[in-house]
Amino acid sequence: MNFLEKLAQSSKNNRSLLCVGLDPDPALMPEGSTGVFQFNRAIIEATADLVCAYKPNIAFYESMGSEGLDALKRTREYIPADIPVIVDAKRGDIGNTAKAYAWGLFDYFNFDATTASPYLGLDSLEPFIEYRDRGVIILCRTSNAGAVDFQSLFCEADGDRKMLFEIVAEKVNEWNTHGNLGLVVGATYPEELKLIRQRYPDMPLLIPGVGAQGGELAQVVSYGVDAGRQRTIINSSRQILYASKGRDFAQAARQAALELRDRINSLL
Amino acid sequence: MNFLEKLAQSSKNNRSLLCVGLDPDPALMPEGSTGVFQFNRAIIEATADLVCAYKPNIAFYESMGSEGLDALKRTREYIPADIPVIVDAKRGDIGNTAKAYAWGLFDYFNFDATTASPYLGLDSLEPFIEYRDRGVIILCRTSNAGAVDFQSLFCEADGDRKMLFEIVAEKVNEWNTHGNLGLVVGATYPEELKLIRQRYPDMPLLIPGVGAQGGELAQVVSYGVDAGRQRTIINSSRQILYASKGRDFAQAARQAALELRDRINSLL
Repeated sequence: MNFLEKLAQSSKNNRSLLCVGLDPDPALMPEGSTGVFQFNRAIIEATADLVCAYKPNIAFYESMGSEGLDALKRTREYIPADIPVIVDAKRGDIGNTAKAYAWGLFDYFNFDATTASPYLGLDSLEPFIEYRDRGVIILCRTSNAGAVDFQSLFCEADGDRKMLFEIVAEKVNEWNTHGNLGLVVGATYPEELKLIRQRYPDMPLLIPGVGAQGGELAQVVSYGVDAGRQRTIINSSRQILYASKGRDFAQAARQAALELRDRINSLL
Repeated sequence: MNFLEKLAQSSKNNRSLLCVGLDPDPALMPEGSTGVFQFNRAIIEATADLVCAYKPNIAFYESMGSEGLDALKRTREYIPADIPVIVDAKRGDIGNTAKAYAWGLFDYFNFDATTASPYLGLDSLEPFIEYRDRGVIILCRTSNAGAVDFQSLFCEADGDRKMLFEIVAEKVNEWNTHGNLGLVVGATYPEELKLIRQRYPDMPLLIPGVGAQGGELAQVVSYGVDAGRQRTIINSSRQILYASKGRDFAQAARQAALELRDRINSLL
């Protein structure tokens, strides 16, 4: 099963468009935590029937050096095989370097999909795209305030004027010959999300920025979800992971995930 | 000493604008290599008096998982303290994630500088910029063919039209209030390099693409080098690391580095 098939299946099985971001931040983790893997394992056990995917951001693991990467590998292996795991790596590099990243993320770690950055263009993405059974989800319109610095610049495009993120989406759609590409569009920019979903009704969209970052859920659901309800990944990290700092953190995470999943479903 | 002071010093001490990219690729490494750290150590011993900086690309280490990161840490620690080490990481992420990357690269690994990607805008770069004694070298015009896909798009800017990479350079220059920013401009686009150097005579430029990637050295030197000859980092990786696949690989690397350093100096 390739990434999109797996995503469709898990979305259906768990009646969920919710992705839990596995971003273990030692400063926020419950008191008395015995380690990153143990924390993740408890979160996974508490939420595996409620999510369409998991999304560890590799930054948190890398910052812990080799031990962090070991925890990431164990975490990935612990996630039930029928739930896709998207590594949030936002890589973008060239030639043999991009190949090394793709090998690391897809072969060594065996992730089902990764996020990637578009700035270096098609040849920087090709080593990822060539893994046809994996997903490559490319930054289009990110959820942060600084997104406007470059992503909203008006550019010339075929005699027309379009914002950079629109051109990125257009190119990604054009490059999607193996059907394994997707886009990151932040929940915090609902109008942009609407525009992208209207133009690319079947494009897998990863939507961060719900919850801690403040994206308005009703708009996200009404503007962002695809008709088949199997190509939309609404991510929440902190709101779920750190729902409680006490010993009940896993139960609290389950409760937060359950509520968010059900709120999304009630808005469909 | 901050990154730029260290770079100026090493450029002067070693009469060198050459940076050696420490990109250990198992497929290219000499037969009978006993490991990444050992390979790097031999390269460093053979070239430490010939370079202004070293630049490991983290992709090669990450693809080897936790062992790779251990090798990277040992490599960084092995490099003489007076030679700056730029990690080529091309990171670009938001908020607490960007902070985790910055902590990992600057605190855990103790690199003197990193490369970063501009697509997510200023707030994605700030956690790096705040380390005032470290350098942040931002992708502007990369050396690969796909660079044209987005970096050459004409954008509207203050009633004028400019290419995206020009706007990136302009913004980076504007954001350079702590004086610790630089730009990546590939050797393979000499006209763009010329333009950037003319506009920003004192901006540190990291110039990859010499050698294996085919950038024309005479143009790179005449267009790219700053007047003070201390803010230009001309990178070569494969041409030096893999000058020989035999047991003489370190001597061959030294010879290749010596020739390239001297060719650069002869063109000044």
